[in-house]
Amino acid sequence: MKIKMDDDVLKNQNKAADFNRIIFKRNQTLVINLMSSPGAGKTTLLEQTVKALAHEYQIAVIEGDLATERDAERLRALGIKTVQINTVGGCHLDARMIAKTLPDFQLEEIDILFIENIGNLVCPSGYDLGQDYKAVILSVPEGNDKIPKYPVMFHRTHLTIINKTDLLPYVHFDLEEARKDLQCINPHADFLALSAQTGDGMEEWLNWIKEVYANAARSQD
Amino acid sequence: MKIKMDDDVLKNQNKAADFNRIIFKRNQTLVINLMSSPGAGKTTLLEQTVKALAHEYQIAVIEGDLATERDAERLRALGIKTVQINTVGGCHLDARMIAKTLPDFQLEEIDILFIENIGNLVCPSGYDLGQDYKAVILSVPEGNDKIPKYPVMFHRTHLTIINKTDLLPYVHFDLEEARKDLQCINPHADFLALSAQTGDGMEEWLNWIKEVYANAARSQD
Repeated sequence: MKIKMDDDVLKNQNKAADFNRIIFKRNQTLVINLMSSPGAGKTTLLEQTVKALAHEYQIAVIEGDLATERDAERLRALGIKTVQINTVGGCHLDARMIAKTLPDFQLEEIDILFIENIGNLVCPSGYDLGQDYKAVILSVPEGNDKIPKYPVMFHRTHLTIINKTDLLPYVHFDLEEARKDLQCINPHADFLALSAQTGDGMEEWLNWIKEVYANAARSQD
Repeated sequence: MKIKMDDDVLKNQNKAADFNRIIFKRNQTLVINLMSSPGAGKTTLLEQTVKALAHEYQIAVIEGDLATERDAERLRALGIKTVQINTVGGCHLDARMIAKTLPDFQLEEIDILFIENIGNLVCPSGYDLGQDYKAVILSVPEGNDKIPKYPVMFHRTHLTIINKTDLLPYVHFDLEEARKDLQCINPHADFLALSAQTGDGMEEWLNWIKEVYANAARSQD
């Protein structure tokens, strides 16, 4: 499908978010906006997710980084269509940046589009990209106090993923406290813990994706 | 010394930075602006630094967080004068916020003031707080690719500290590559690696502080 957008969409963040949402819905593409601090493991989680799901779903990725194409290259190496956005110092992705990449995709053929946001636990939370779901990764070495200390991010996301559980023996991180803190800030949020590195807990994340995909498909019927 | 500031200082970021700088110089207070991603270990490093240096220097801290007084309480427990700034969602500290805290300190009695910035590897790098030195902490679990991927932060800081070296056996982090990447982006920057948790490498950081303190004192003579 050819994507046309007028100047307004490219000038106005809210219009662009609505525009993206309409395009995604029309193409029945499920869109997940993945956020975290730098180095929490977004790209590794995406690599493992793609390896596990690519036989079942057509997956594509938008990679957000201040600089370099490193993360995009990691996904492309798995045969996944990936568009890199370099913000050249910008601290978050916005809907206009996403809108500009859409003509590069054959969205009608894509089941799931992951957007890997800039590594930043603050700014990306404020920007609607037109996604269906927002997920935030918090990695074990960051410490479980990050949930109350960065409440805006955790308040606004559908799913919190605790990553790098393989490091639990070596650092202080209280999973139960994290779960309770999230419950206080965002009682409706889903919560799961995994290690993208070892694969431990990945099944729960993959099932979460399958479930939200099935729900989105049903809502289209 | 009583600190008076006019409205201009509180309205204009650049004027506030210059104002802070003058106040710090006049009081011979060395100011270090400490930045990093969330959970890289800024507060733990400060706790260990205070324990090692408090018998030799009068130390004070400004703690920046989106929410909570948790970090300030950790420093106060060590008997250190600490002022907490809560940005209520804001992604960085600016010079006006720092200026507003100055009347809370007896700066003429303080040798070293640490400013712990918001956990964010992007936005704080753009804001001059009037500090003498900027230091950035990158923790081992974040991965050494963060230096080329967040170049603005590493380009603008005097010192890069690699923290959590105790986790080197459990995650991929190439110290030599980090050193080379930093050298490319910022040839004049200092570089050191330590574990604030185990104390390994702390001596080099403490010596760095002593050296910049002595240099600042000499330049006042």
